[in-house]
Amino acid sequence: MADVKAKLAELGWTLPQPSQPVACYVPVVQTGNLLVVSGQLPMVDGKVTATGAVPSAVSVEDAKQAAAQCAVNALAAIGMHLNGDFSKIKQIVRLGVFVKSDNDFAGQPQVANGASELMGKVFGEAGRHARAAVGVNALPLDACVEVELMVEIA
Amino acid sequence: MADVKAKLAELGWTLPQPSQPVACYVPVVQTGNLLVVSGQLPMVDGKVTATGAVPSAVSVEDAKQAAAQCAVNALAAIGMHLNGDFSKIKQIVRLGVFVKSDNDFAGQPQVANGASELMGKVFGEAGRHARAAVGVNALPLDACVEVELMVEIA
Amino acid sequence: MADVKAKLAELGWTLPQPSQPVACYVPVVQTGNLLVVSGQLPMVDGKVTATGAVPSAVSVEDAKQAAAQCAVNALAAIGMHLNGDFSKIKQIVRLGVFVKSDNDFAGQPQVANGASELMGKVFGEAGRHARAAVGVNALPLDACVEVELMVEIA
Repeated sequence: MADVKAKLAELGWTLPQPSQPVACYVPVVQTGNLLVVSGQLPMVDGKVTATGAVPSAVSVEDAKQAAAQCAVNALAAIGMHLNGDFSKIKQIVRLGVFVKSDNDFAGQPQVANGASELMGKVFGEAGRHARAAVGVNALPLDACVEVELMVEIA
Repeated sequence: MADVKAKLAELGWTLPQPSQPVACYVPVVQTGNLLVVSGQLPMVDGKVTATGAVPSAVSVEDAKQAAAQCAVNALAAIGMHLNGDFSKIKQIVRLGVFVKSDNDFAGQPQVANGASELMGKVFGEAGRHARAAVGVNALPLDACVEVELMVEIA
Repeated sequence: MADVKAKLAELGWTLPQPSQPVACYVPVVQTGNLLVVSGQLPMVDGKVTATGAVPSAVSVEDAKQAAAQCAVNALAAIGMHLNGDFSKIKQIVRLGVFVKSDNDFAGQPQVANGASELMGKVFGEAGRHARAAVGVNALPLDACVEVELMVEIA
């Protein structure tokens, strides 16, 4: 599990510079051996990559990719907290996935799989997590998806 | 608290076979002595029992019953994780309840009570939990309610 | 961090009498050294102060103030659990903020800042938390915002 950067590169992802802490709200808080990671948007270079509701404005496939980007951004935040030592990650515990949805869209799990499958590919057994995936009518910056995490470290 | 199956039967509920793990997303993750349970839908025999928004498509009473079904399904998942030894449950810590709601519906607590009251009836003091109940415009499989849990075990 | 009441007073807030436990659902559950606080509404004297969606029915500024009220109410619940000894609070770990939003509203972080900034002002470094802020189409009692918390105590 140590070489998360290499594994991500192999999957075609680059670990971004994590965004800086904003005022009294921070990307990661540690309590005991749990990391609680703030809700991540599908940001690349400071811009949300996919905006609007699924599927009318963003296809399920694009939203799934955006969910994977949220997961990558979460890993960047975790990496900063761990000073790059991803080998400390013991288990991805929980993903909370919020999908900006048209009222009649019922495929939130397919979108959330973008984040879940990434965790599985990167961490194997340690990437198997509990999950709550729900639809919402609005998200920050009009993002199509937001993902929050709980992670256990050694 | 030991005989959860008997208590549920007394209340008219049957503990279902828990659904199998799906890929990298699993029903229950344990971290320390906390169980984090994935979002549960009101599924019976593989089908969601009540679909659509509350109250236009599903009555508050039916949605409350569906929330109780979600809680029962969560107990089935927990039972699988504990190899049936429910006596290990020390406290139901938190319920997160998402109710598919019409925009002007404000009775999410009444719906969530379906899950909360079940926990109280089954576990007594140990069933008293913190709760967040909110409305959403869309849920997986068009379910009218989704419930996630955190549980402390001994 | 000890004198939360005085700090709140200095900021113009009064710590209310926390609402009483309702049936099997309670304001605060402790697991280990974590407090899990139920979703708080912007209640004052038993009434929600700001109802409806942001920004069509409630301005962003008013919703931000309502989010701060939710945080104050959470502190009241925590205070009751701690028998008034706020000095036991070690870290505000996580805020979950649900903002009743028009479909095209994307400023949930600005609303959530009402709660986040209050925590920062009251607790300083110990108030720096992880956060998930999302929009929803409906909330209990038609409140414009709901805030839930996780807090680590010593």
